[in-house]
Amino acid sequence: MTDSLPLQQDAGLLSPVRAGTAVEEAVCDRAWLQAMLDAEAALARAQAKLGTVPSEAAEAIGAAARADNFSLRELALAARETANPVVGLVQALTRVVAATDPAAAEYVHRGSTSQDILDTGAMLVARRALAIVRADLDRTARALAALAAHHRDTPAAGRTLALQAVPTTFGLKAAGWRLLVLDAGARLTAVHDHGLPVSLGGAAGTLAGYLEYARIDGAGRPDPGGYLDSLVDAFAAETGLARPVLPWHALRTPIADLAAALAFTAGALGKIAVDVQNLTRTEVCEVTEPAADGRGGSSAMPHKRNPVLATMIRSAALQVPSLAAALTQCLVSEDERSGGAWHAEWQLLRECLRLAGGAARTAAELTEGLRADPDRMLANLHLTGSQVVSERLAAVLAPHLGKAAARRLLTDASLRCRRTGEPLAAVLAETPAAAHLTPEALTALCDPTAYTGAASHLVTRALARPGRAGRPPGPTAG
Amino acid sequence: MTDSLPLQQDAGLLSPVRAGTAVEEAVCDRAWLQAMLDAEAALARAQAKLGTVPSEAAEAIGAAARADNFSLRELALAARETANPVVGLVQALTRVVAATDPAAAEYVHRGSTSQDILDTGAMLVARRALAIVRADLDRTARALAALAAHHRDTPAAGRTLALQAVPTTFGLKAAGWRLLVLDAGARLTAVHDHGLPVSLGGAAGTLAGYLEYARIDGAGRPDPGGYLDSLVDAFAAETGLARPVLPWHALRTPIADLAAALAFTAGALGKIAVDVQNLTRTEVCEVTEPAADGRGGSSAMPHKRNPVLATMIRSAALQVPSLAAALTQCLVSEDERSGGAWHAEWQLLRECLRLAGGAARTAAELTEGLRADPDRMLANLHLTGSQVVSERLAAVLAPHLGKAAARRLLTDASLRCRRTGEPLAAVLAETPAAAHLTPEALTALCDPTAYTGAASHLVTRALARPGRAGRPPGPTAG
Amino acid sequence: MTDSLPLQQDAGLLSPVRAGTAVEEAVCDRAWLQAMLDAEAALARAQAKLGTVPSEAAEAIGAAARADNFSLRELALAARETANPVVGLVQALTRVVAATDPAAAEYVHRGSTSQDILDTGAMLVARRALAIVRADLDRTARALAALAAHHRDTPAAGRTLALQAVPTTFGLKAAGWRLLVLDAGARLTAVHDHGLPVSLGGAAGTLAGYLEYARIDGAGRPDPGGYLDSLVDAFAAETGLARPVLPWHALRTPIADLAAALAFTAGALGKIAVDVQNLTRTEVCEVTEPAADGRGGSSAMPHKRNPVLATMIRSAALQVPSLAAALTQCLVSEDERSGGAWHAEWQLLRECLRLAGGAARTAAELTEGLRADPDRMLANLHLTGSQVVSERLAAVLAPHLGKAAARRLLTDASLRCRRTGEPLAAVLAETPAAAHLTPEALTALCDPTAYTGAASHLVTRALARPGRAGRPPGPTAG
Amino acid sequence: MTDSLPLQQDAGLLSPVRAGTAVEEAVCDRAWLQAMLDAEAALARAQAKLGTVPSEAAEAIGAAARADNFSLRELALAARETANPVVGLVQALTRVVAATDPAAAEYVHRGSTSQDILDTGAMLVARRALAIVRADLDRTARALAALAAHHRDTPAAGRTLALQAVPTTFGLKAAGWRLLVLDAGARLTAVHDHGLPVSLGGAAGTLAGYLEYARIDGAGRPDPGGYLDSLVDAFAAETGLARPVLPWHALRTPIADLAAALAFTAGALGKIAVDVQNLTRTEVCEVTEPAADGRGGSSAMPHKRNPVLATMIRSAALQVPSLAAALTQCLVSEDERSGGAWHAEWQLLRECLRLAGGAARTAAELTEGLRADPDRMLANLHLTGSQVVSERLAAVLAPHLGKAAARRLLTDASLRCRRTGEPLAAVLAETPAAAHLTPEALTALCDPTAYTGAASHLVTRALARPGRAGRPPGPTAG
Repeated sequence: MTDSLPLQQDAGLLSPVRAGTAVEEAVCDRAWLQAMLDAEAALARAQAKLGTVPSEAAEAIGAAARADNFSLRELALAARETANPVVGLVQALTRVVAATDPAAAEYVHRGSTSQDILDTGAMLVARRALAIVRADLDRTARALAALAAHHRDTPAAGRTLALQAVPTTFGLKAAGWRLLVLDAGARLTAVHDHGLPVSLGGAAGTLAGYLEYARIDGAGRPDPGGYLDSLVDAFAAETGLARPVLPWHALRTPIADLAAALAFTAGALGKIAVDVQNLTRTEVCEVTEPAADGRGGSSAMPHKRNPVLATMIRSAALQVPSLAAALTQCLVSEDERSGGAWHAEWQLLRECLRLAGGAARTAAELTEGLRADPDRMLANLHLTGSQVVSERLAAVLAPHLGKAAARRLLTDASLRCRRTGEPLAAVLAETPAAAHLTPEALTALCDPTAYTGAASHLVTRALARPGRAGRPPGPTAG
Repeated sequence: MTDSLPLQQDAGLLSPVRAGTAVEEAVCDRAWLQAMLDAEAALARAQAKLGTVPSEAAEAIGAAARADNFSLRELALAARETANPVVGLVQALTRVVAATDPAAAEYVHRGSTSQDILDTGAMLVARRALAIVRADLDRTARALAALAAHHRDTPAAGRTLALQAVPTTFGLKAAGWRLLVLDAGARLTAVHDHGLPVSLGGAAGTLAGYLEYARIDGAGRPDPGGYLDSLVDAFAAETGLARPVLPWHALRTPIADLAAALAFTAGALGKIAVDVQNLTRTEVCEVTEPAADGRGGSSAMPHKRNPVLATMIRSAALQVPSLAAALTQCLVSEDERSGGAWHAEWQLLRECLRLAGGAARTAAELTEGLRADPDRMLANLHLTGSQVVSERLAAVLAPHLGKAAARRLLTDASLRCRRTGEPLAAVLAETPAAAHLTPEALTALCDPTAYTGAASHLVTRALARPGRAGRPPGPTAG
Repeated sequence: MTDSLPLQQDAGLLSPVRAGTAVEEAVCDRAWLQAMLDAEAALARAQAKLGTVPSEAAEAIGAAARADNFSLRELALAARETANPVVGLVQALTRVVAATDPAAAEYVHRGSTSQDILDTGAMLVARRALAIVRADLDRTARALAALAAHHRDTPAAGRTLALQAVPTTFGLKAAGWRLLVLDAGARLTAVHDHGLPVSLGGAAGTLAGYLEYARIDGAGRPDPGGYLDSLVDAFAAETGLARPVLPWHALRTPIADLAAALAFTAGALGKIAVDVQNLTRTEVCEVTEPAADGRGGSSAMPHKRNPVLATMIRSAALQVPSLAAALTQCLVSEDERSGGAWHAEWQLLRECLRLAGGAARTAAELTEGLRADPDRMLANLHLTGSQVVSERLAAVLAPHLGKAAARRLLTDASLRCRRTGEPLAAVLAETPAAAHLTPEALTALCDPTAYTGAASHLVTRALARPGRAGRPPGPTAG
Repeated sequence: MTDSLPLQQDAGLLSPVRAGTAVEEAVCDRAWLQAMLDAEAALARAQAKLGTVPSEAAEAIGAAARADNFSLRELALAARETANPVVGLVQALTRVVAATDPAAAEYVHRGSTSQDILDTGAMLVARRALAIVRADLDRTARALAALAAHHRDTPAAGRTLALQAVPTTFGLKAAGWRLLVLDAGARLTAVHDHGLPVSLGGAAGTLAGYLEYARIDGAGRPDPGGYLDSLVDAFAAETGLARPVLPWHALRTPIADLAAALAFTAGALGKIAVDVQNLTRTEVCEVTEPAADGRGGSSAMPHKRNPVLATMIRSAALQVPSLAAALTQCLVSEDERSGGAWHAEWQLLRECLRLAGGAARTAAELTEGLRADPDRMLANLHLTGSQVVSERLAAVLAPHLGKAAARRLLTDASLRCRRTGEPLAAVLAETPAAAHLTPEALTALCDPTAYTGAASHLVTRALARPGRAGRPPGPTAG
């Protein structure tokens, strides 16, 4: 009963950022199907543990609950009849179980409801995917730590609003990238470790079906409170997921938290990507993406080595926040279970996971192989003839001329630099500034590499933040 | 070289709204691949028509350009090296052509660039998908026209801010739904008919590669302007797509227009869906989704017949506007071709097409089979004991009591109705209103079915708007 | 009664959800201006503490830094020249200081940059606003705790996909609402307590300007690392904000975190709002918004008492997630400071704060006065003639008939109930079910109030979660 | 110099892109208030024209309907009681009219409902705003036409995925910008001219109130169909707005169309902005924003002249698509009037209008003063030592070496260029290529200015598209 599918919905052709990555496989339809089957099997085992389902039945259900036993496409098509794939899955699973153990088939999905299975499956998928994403963020953070340490004192132009502003170091830039990656990791870790609960509510969140079957299957009427606690505990233990305070059919905190953390991750990596793109520009050329045979080639221009990793990361960063917003809006789920808001989540969540995850894998490749060119950084830093340190000169002259006059003098001098191409020192030598600065002092002050402020110290402090934060996910703040 | 894929990315399992629909097949990876191959073949034919490619070569390329000759998954994986699938596709197509006609292989992708092929392919995919969506909207509009005509004078409660407000007719509601569907159709038609151009720019939008090869392949140096016009004309003719004013590698009007029209479509259908859901509520029960064996079943509750069609439509309406926003943001494409903004579009566009298209198909099923219950509508209309016509009574009493006093009187009387359950007529009979209205007049005025205003006439006027609008896509306005 | 201002951009006319609320005032332009002035004053005091600015100068700056001394509109207009309001503000502040203490004027904005001031101001505004929002969420949570406790055992219909599904209790619904409110509070608290850092980076994040002036103003060349630490500490202490690991001009974690927490808050409150709207529907009528004189009136229909509080909350829930997505996208900030991504944040952040805050205030009003009608809940629960417990009957009959047959029997019986209006018990009495159930048992099983599952116990457990969570912001999970 | 208003919600401080622009004033709260008053006055005049309201009353209402007669803030605060500002406005307007003409006061808002007034007012505001935006787009398009014509043959590097790709001309870039501006203008024009209808539906879209008062105020029972037509005609004539097919309280096509056109506009202008930013980069320096005294200054760095116009435009482009998505989602308006979806639109619509409008005004300033530097463009084009024409050389060598080998040769040669800094011609002279090209031919082929393809002709064709398109809003396609 496997697929021999004439129709390929999505083989990754339109989404290179995640094609072939581990996260793609972890969230594919087959993985999702297996996760829902895992939920059914875990539920049966949990009920067996409490004595309301025969353990042989639980075993038979577990044995049948392998994705290979089912046709994804048939399940997908059947889902149109009920608006979700679980109704059809339960029927198919029941058939598979019945084929070997008719008695066990009675215990499939015992007391349960579609949403318990789909949501628990989604949490299992998310957990597996997040583990992959975090590992790739760890790789990325390590690579950036090495870059930051190595280039702690590599002078480079700091750029603001597109223009060279004041000097910085490349190490500080890399340290900043790393910090964002750690921030992303901390947010994903918080969700991974505490935010992925089993779903166990029954038809409308009261667990009535579970209790009723427990009464029928067990010895008389169980204490509802006690049974509730035991069943949730057992289901959580079997799946490894968290224990929710309440059934969350219409309380979509886990989904919104996933959305927020994944949007953050994609955005954070997107910042790195645009920086790499800007530094890669032909006219800037301060970094190069890792070379691999054939990578970055163009179909038209043989000379090009496109920054394809940054490009793919950015393609994810442009998508995930909007997808995440749609997920966040699904918090507005009416009644005990929504007709539509729940159903909108599935594909969006999968897409957020694989785009953010693809971006993380790509960022690991990018940062581990990124080559920085200190000579070119230095050359660029000298492009403006020291205008890039105008702030410093204005400061030095302020006590002599007053802040406003010093500033005006530097503005005018810079304008002349741009017009004539003269270096700032030469221009200043012909202004009132000359009265307050020896030629030697002027030369020294005009050296961009001598005006990197606290960059080196900032790198040291930032690298002291541990890579896998165990601290509360407070942002950036240390 | 066909796929024997162990991994199913997306068989529709998470997106019942489009699983198995025609639009799903029209936008799947295989369809996208075929469309890109169609673009390559059409380009070769166009160049052959202009005499710069041998016609045998164009034929060989056309013969090789069948999706079955390629492995989707291999192409998808190769795309990671170049950030788009075309570079690998061109290599693979060249190999396939070379296997039978080595000379022809030289003419594959002659002078072209990845974006020309992918964007032209995207437009072909979009055109095929839009034709399907429009046909389903036409079906929906026809079904709604029938509903509106049939229920032109079926009284029902008009509801505002969740409460019964004044009477309306069910026909007016259906006529409003139809108008939105026509608006959606008009927007899609405008894009379909005028907004889907070929992409033909070459490496950076100057067509230099095409011109260079024309010079090499043809007889001397062609007039660039003339050749440009001829090539664009020929390519447009071969593909059936529109002729762009300029190469649009970084001028993403077609994508933004598609996004807007598809978001509109999903939103318009979503309005119908939420109305159907609200009218389906157990306590309201004025409409029922079409019954089909097994449809609407729940995995837990045997009595339920869930409004699954409305649910699926709403799931699309909750997704498409956010996806479309991400597409619209890709208008901000830097330089001659963007590193990321272009790449973000592909999956988003496909998803918008299949979600909106799935919603349209589902809406056709929903509206063609929707059953309205005039008795229940009437019963609900009487639920408030004529409070639902309080506006009318306030109007009638205004000349006698003054507008403000009349209004106050009705507010107080309605409050008493709600408290005591008495009908409004009984309450009013004990107020100063009685001095101005005979009991007969009061009874007549309190009849909700006599206060449907111009509903019937509005239906007539709305139905006069033709189903397939040839008029400019001015919204709603007639 | 006229406004003296010729031009009123925004007096709240278009945003009733926040008009007149405390959070509106806390984030208005005047508040934002004052916060930026507070940042300038705190910076001067911090520098004075380190001995690089004369303490008289810091005092003079602090005295001048009152919003009343400035024209908002002039500053707004001047901001067009520099794309941000700080450049003009610094000039104006310098003038105000100079008017009384020309020497002190030299120390205004010493070594600083626009973004340090605007971002620190934004964090001050956010902190003040969040404190208000959290207090309103606390009020809301308390009101919901009371509702949940009071109605712990009030039977009501559980509704899924718009239809009555199985019984629940109103207390469980209220407990779920409260949990979402606590989740929102926990997320806001995490940001409030750890996520709002001072901005102190200077022109491009190296603090070079601060160090240079420290050298000039102090005694020789300070140790950059030590001075950096001292200055950040002092600035953080003066403002009460957190200490960032690195300057965050282009590392926008604090903004993204605010966006996520505020979107969550609006969405969570939106869920309550749609539930209240659905329960308020004329045909359902299980809850009523708090009455206040004139509240909920319609301009046309005297009988209406619109659920205006839920309406306003929902209006915010429909806006904030999209605004927050735009903020999240600003993580993609190029270079050391972005030309546009930073500038896009300001209005979006203000709008998120005041919409989420307005929704929280409105939710407090709504929940504190919400009236539930247990009689109507009970009546609605009986509307389906016990179909609402079909799940239970299928479970009870399963051991006798097999699960599938039992389910089929109930499906058919329910269909007949709907067609004929008979109660389920009567229908079942004529089926094979009768062989397995005494009439008394059947009657008992058909009582909806006896099938609320673990609802009561779930309420107890949910209420045990403390109102102001000190725990990590793990979602829902307990 | 202080503001007399105690509380300034929004003086433009946080939104420099629109501060002080004409569109800002056209959409401010005061303008919105006046537009709603205009709607009330026009309604009374229309009713007077039909003889159901005394013309003296209509005149008195018109005379009272001046924004100066009302307190915006009081109206805003009162709106919290009813969730919209119209209920309070009607009461206040009634009082103002009654103060001079008590009889006329009875005819205020006769038969009407809040949404008719607010929506008609919104359309009036939108129409006034769109006229301003279109004028600014016209200015922008004219400026770009001049730039395109002037630089039709100015060679410049075409850049793709951040790297120099092949040569283009600056004129072609400017022509592309213009085309986007024309596309935006065409979309806004379509909405302006056909898409802004009056709202005239009464309480729930049946016009029952209007008909009832017509019966009371006029001579007996009017023909509903005829009166409906006459009243809509008269109201449309009085306001100058379009005539809707149906009342659109819950059919939100006009809002969605506005959202789409404004998002397009902001995105299109954003594309120009990022291009200007990239061309402004210190290392590229091919264009400069118009200089104005003080414009572009930094608070820290005297040498900087920030591209502030592009920065502000981009700030709008980053916001509007997300705001527009939220508006589009409001298509999903339940029932005859939504409780929340309608209310969410107002502020979003205003913000879209003033951000897109501010961006258009800013774009006019930017493009009218933009200075291009052909010398720098040429210098940059020579930066790669002719790698930028590698495509051409591969084409020329293809007939001699085969396409694949020619491509490989150029890839290797380009790699060596980058490594050694040699020009491509020198490298190629030592390869098999030399056998096929004379040194003179090689030199000629390596001239980047000789490989601009059809750029010049494309500019000519694009400029032939008229500035104010009267054609249907088909995108880009000619």
